[in-house]
Amino acid sequence: MSLLEAVFNCQSVAVVGASASPEKTGHTVLKNILEGGYRGKVFPINPKAEEILGVKCFPSVREIPGTVDLVVVIVPGKMVPAVMREAGAKSAQGAVIISGGFRETGNADLENEVLAIAGQHGIRIIGPNCQGFNYTPNRLCASWPLVSAAGNIAVISQSGTVGAAMEMWAAGEQMGISGFVALGNKSDINESDLIDFFGSDPNTRVIALYVEGIKNGQAFREKAAATEKPLIVLKPGRTVKGRKAAESHTKSIAGSDRIFDAACRQMGIVRAYDLTEFYDYTKALCLLTKPAGNRIMVVTSSGGSGILATDTAEEHGLEVVGLESALQQELRAILPEQCVVANPLDLTGDATAERYENAVQLALTSSQIDMVLLIFGDPIPGATQTVMKLRQLTNKPIVVSYLGGGDVEAEETRLMQLEGIAVFPTPERAIKAVGALLRSK
Amino acid sequence: MSLLEAVFNCQSVAVVGASASPEKTGHTVLKNILEGGYRGKVFPINPKAEEILGVKCFPSVREIPGTVDLVVVIVPGKMVPAVMREAGAKSAQGAVIISGGFRETGNADLENEVLAIAGQHGIRIIGPNCQGFNYTPNRLCASWPLVSAAGNIAVISQSGTVGAAMEMWAAGEQMGISGFVALGNKSDINESDLIDFFGSDPNTRVIALYVEGIKNGQAFREKAAATEKPLIVLKPGRTVKGRKAAESHTKSIAGSDRIFDAACRQMGIVRAYDLTEFYDYTKALCLLTKPAGNRIMVVTSSGGSGILATDTAEEHGLEVVGLESALQQELRAILPEQCVVANPLDLTGDATAERYENAVQLALTSSQIDMVLLIFGDPIPGATQTVMKLRQLTNKPIVVSYLGGGDVEAEETRLMQLEGIAVFPTPERAIKAVGALLRSK
Repeated sequence: MSLLEAVFNCQSVAVVGASASPEKTGHTVLKNILEGGYRGKVFPINPKAEEILGVKCFPSVREIPGTVDLVVVIVPGKMVPAVMREAGAKSAQGAVIISGGFRETGNADLENEVLAIAGQHGIRIIGPNCQGFNYTPNRLCASWPLVSAAGNIAVISQSGTVGAAMEMWAAGEQMGISGFVALGNKSDINESDLIDFFGSDPNTRVIALYVEGIKNGQAFREKAAATEKPLIVLKPGRTVKGRKAAESHTKSIAGSDRIFDAACRQMGIVRAYDLTEFYDYTKALCLLTKPAGNRIMVVTSSGGSGILATDTAEEHGLEVVGLESALQQELRAILPEQCVVANPLDLTGDATAERYENAVQLALTSSQIDMVLLIFGDPIPGATQTVMKLRQLTNKPIVVSYLGGGDVEAEETRLMQLEGIAVFPTPERAIKAVGALLRSK
Repeated sequence: MSLLEAVFNCQSVAVVGASASPEKTGHTVLKNILEGGYRGKVFPINPKAEEILGVKCFPSVREIPGTVDLVVVIVPGKMVPAVMREAGAKSAQGAVIISGGFRETGNADLENEVLAIAGQHGIRIIGPNCQGFNYTPNRLCASWPLVSAAGNIAVISQSGTVGAAMEMWAAGEQMGISGFVALGNKSDINESDLIDFFGSDPNTRVIALYVEGIKNGQAFREKAAATEKPLIVLKPGRTVKGRKAAESHTKSIAGSDRIFDAACRQMGIVRAYDLTEFYDYTKALCLLTKPAGNRIMVVTSSGGSGILATDTAEEHGLEVVGLESALQQELRAILPEQCVVANPLDLTGDATAERYENAVQLALTSSQIDMVLLIFGDPIPGATQTVMKLRQLTNKPIVVSYLGGGDVEAEETRLMQLEGIAVFPTPERAIKAVGALLRSK
């Protein structure tokens, strides 16, 4: 069992600094724990309140009857050492310190004091100066916003905003998260520990990491190498000014970007260079398997979209492979005359879902094709059913782009998302996303 | 007056091949003309129907009482010469030939015959083999889908799907189009003619062109040079296989990409390299003015997002300029202690709309700042009002990215779009979009 198992799957939580005022963080966090459906015990800690949100309060951690597994700490930084001592006395195994006022404001001593107390009691710390965490298998959202869309994506982020944006994006795409952890100052638990945890977490399929600096390069390499799960990393600081901004934001040492980039390539870590890539690559790696090679077939109802896909594919290490003559003959035999039998295969604007199905079924039998991009460039009802049938016939990745299809597009896109089909709003984003598959482990 | 004025602002339209069957193109086009609110005369032409959609039918163009300005042609290719002769006899000035079966299927002779008849009668042709056109100032949607969101963007497209995607995108972003024209085979009217028309059209602010090949390079340069309006071009065919696909799609000669690229730079044509850039650059050029220089100030509530913006800015020709010490002092005097007074200016996670307003108001006075990126990285109500106040104080472009803000983000983004604020879902897309402003004329 991972050392962090006890933190994420804790059976009881104290919220230190729970507040009755809706605008306070100590209110939001308690509310999210309750509304998120956490089934363990919850102890709001507030010396001035009898109960908050209908739950009985305790004046201090010390007064909690019995033990407590996890303390979520929202009180001012200088009060945190005392809280940690009480948590130790109650056999807590984890502390999520949301409070600021530590190393990030020059108070490294206070942070070290907290860390020392935690060490004495065997308490693991997330934070301080962070946005908390959310672990959907335990229905424990000790963070904000409340995103209860459970899924397979683990989000680890040194930026609360980037983490929140990822959570909301995943929910909007019908994917959801297994967990979200805000790293904060990383005084104890860092990105490598979390790769270790989520890497063996059965609820997690893919790990998305936003990080401004790696705390321990050796540990990072070891943990990233140890997991079989795809790992996508967005790490800014590529430019001199970006690096300076990163160092000022989280006191991270961004390190040499060239060395980090080389390490990613070597280890099959997929690097995203912007937030759009971070979203798209995470989706591809969550929903698709790695193709056997780089040869892609593009099937489209829109000639122009096929050309856009072709340029982007060729520029991103994919090969828009020529079709064997046998396959060409077979396709010509079943397709209307106006179709352009080539790669891209242009089924033209009157294409139906059935025409896609028939053509792609043939193409999937070719040993020269490693993956397929389907571009639906018109209102084509039934496209989702077609993709579902096709993917049962093959292990080859099938990626989709839907555009120019009006109301039908909106509805089919929603259906595809519900079915776990990797659908993208432009052909180029779809192509770049499957390109990322090739770079993954 | 532009020669095409009579086509786009025609006062009467014949729909040749109007159909009572809802699944037929000849039905959709007639329906869209009627439902789009066109106020001129409409003559459905169908020898077998008395009336369609409540409008009296005529058996042929010849039978129309009086003259007709425009014929929209949906009948099979081989019937088109006869239609053109009748249109000529009725003094038509334009023909939109949606029908296929011409040069694209090897029937160049038929296309030349149609062109010759049009020449004899002084009729200008859009198409053949195209998706028609939509001109919102005349409320004339002789195309599909029906997008009646009127705005300032002229879309010219050699791909129906890319055109439809742009129309739907513009409507979804509360921008809308002045016109959409599908180029089809470009037998007569080509991209240069349309740049000429929209370039002097008072309803058009920006021209977005998707093209696979330029028909006449010299004319294109002349017309692009003549208009003062921003021109964004998405032209695939950068790679060998992309070029081959373009030639197979529309029989276009894609030409040397390097020469096209150089021409764009020289003439202040903004080139988009994928559909996302096509959307984003069109938005920026529609809603913002060109900055005096490349120095940008980034103001954020999210440190991480500010770093992402900084990297992208430095990589795309913008300078994240250091702040003068006087400005730094003024900002420190008005901002809470936790704010990081630098560029990016980090107003931190508890930033309010008012804090943005106060800080940016100061920054706008600096002669060393040419434009501002505001990143709202938290739920910040009132952000829209703040941006509206700020942009009244300055001619400098203010671009916005909103992310990680949950329900507040969704609502504020909608409000910003309604107010014509250039808002983007990621900081990097916002940065690249203002970078495009610098390359425009």
